[in-house]
Amino acid sequence: MANDWLELERVAREWTYEAAMIIKRSLASPIHIEAKSNPNDLVTEVDRAVEAFFFEKIQETYPEHYFLGEEGVAEEIQSLNGTVWIIDPIDGTMNFVHQKYNFAISVAVYHDGVGMIGLVYDVISDELFHAVRGHGAYINEVELVPVKERPLHESIIGLNARWLVEERNQYRNPLKALVRDVRSVRSYGSAAIEIAYVAADRLDGYVSVNLSPWDYAAAIVLLEEVGCKASTFRGEPLDLLSQSPVIVGKPHLHKEMISSYVGEEL
Amino acid sequence: MANDWLELERVAREWTYEAAMIIKRSLASPIHIEAKSNPNDLVTEVDRAVEAFFFEKIQETYPEHYFLGEEGVAEEIQSLNGTVWIIDPIDGTMNFVHQKYNFAISVAVYHDGVGMIGLVYDVISDELFHAVRGHGAYINEVELVPVKERPLHESIIGLNARWLVEERNQYRNPLKALVRDVRSVRSYGSAAIEIAYVAADRLDGYVSVNLSPWDYAAAIVLLEEVGCKASTFRGEPLDLLSQSPVIVGKPHLHKEMISSYVGEEL
Repeated sequence: MANDWLELERVAREWTYEAAMIIKRSLASPIHIEAKSNPNDLVTEVDRAVEAFFFEKIQETYPEHYFLGEEGVAEEIQSLNGTVWIIDPIDGTMNFVHQKYNFAISVAVYHDGVGMIGLVYDVISDELFHAVRGHGAYINEVELVPVKERPLHESIIGLNARWLVEERNQYRNPLKALVRDVRSVRSYGSAAIEIAYVAADRLDGYVSVNLSPWDYAAAIVLLEEVGCKASTFRGEPLDLLSQSPVIVGKPHLHKEMISSYVGEEL
Repeated sequence: MANDWLELERVAREWTYEAAMIIKRSLASPIHIEAKSNPNDLVTEVDRAVEAFFFEKIQETYPEHYFLGEEGVAEEIQSLNGTVWIIDPIDGTMNFVHQKYNFAISVAVYHDGVGMIGLVYDVISDELFHAVRGHGAYINEVELVPVKERPLHESIIGLNARWLVEERNQYRNPLKALVRDVRSVRSYGSAAIEIAYVAADRLDGYVSVNLSPWDYAAAIVLLEEVGCKASTFRGEPLDLLSQSPVIVGKPHLHKEMISSYVGEEL
């Protein structure tokens, strides 16, 4: 079975590089942008085209597989039974539109709820973060090694500053305390890239008050291969069928961020 | 005279690439780190070696030039008369130490207080942002063009989340209001890179409550070439001999951030 997952990852990587070509070509011409649920939740025809590309490839090649994507080109799934592809065609659409860099294709394959394959491809920097369960995590050809932990006050975490100012965010105060206590905070505008950065030791942890499964499904496969942790703010396993707060980190930092900061709403 | 500045920039670029080799070689071995004024203000022997490299080159080649650097290898200067090199050997030392990416060599040449040459070299991504006054700004070989402005609510700004939580920061409330009102916030951990990103249209603006001249001296030469603005929070010109709050942006955004947010302390 392990060989099958390695073979499936090879196919997924090929499709991901093909999808990246679609995105790169689109950057040459003006991009049509729409707002979704709120004016800062953007989607473009490129997001939809890339999701449709994956959906068609999967239907054609693996008709027995299921599909969960951000842009809803497939029917909604009700369970994670069987083999499920979880895809964000462009994670960091705002970066894609404004900055034309720091966005990623996120491709995960889960089997009966367990993450088997995770690919996060930062298209412009040409960094493919990839992992097959039990076979290690890589940036391009370089294997990522489990790294030594830093104490919280020497850690750098990924966190969007908006969570510190939104009145509706019930975790505002614990997150402010966390930002005061860590060494520093970074924000790149793509959850998939930021979680992959934790696996790659560019960040020690990452926190978001609200993510969808396609934002993190691939990146957390990478995390597990290097011994990092991902959970809800209460330390519970993430439910890949719904949105939730997500906290990610090296094991001790992950535990401390939950027990001393976000585990209880303040 | 213009030809002299173009020739001087050619020399500065050569030295910058040489300095980058010193830095890259250092990444292969453990780096000795010290804290400066506070435990999160880091310096390494690599910062010092790179600053000394530039200082010696300049003394040898242009003995009549003055030198202002972060690590104090040269005597302090009291004025900006004559030709002054302003150098940050590694802007983003914390990124250099932790992340091993997203740090830059920042090299500026000023003449009688006017920025003539600005180089910001992102060593790992191999992006050299460079400008000679009156001759345009570039990323590597690609010229940067003045870009159309976005309204504030569609703008992405660079801002470190720490400024939103530090009790001692007198600008905390106006900055919180700004973060609520813009489209989104990014933070990369290097002022030189973030200001260069404004020139390159990856960010619309950038705000810091406290920068030193070597953090921004080179990047603001780039800004001026594409019509962007840099000033104190009161809209006054930056004083390159002292620390100050710095606000940077496309012209309308820069003006609005000052008039509606940080121009008056709240």
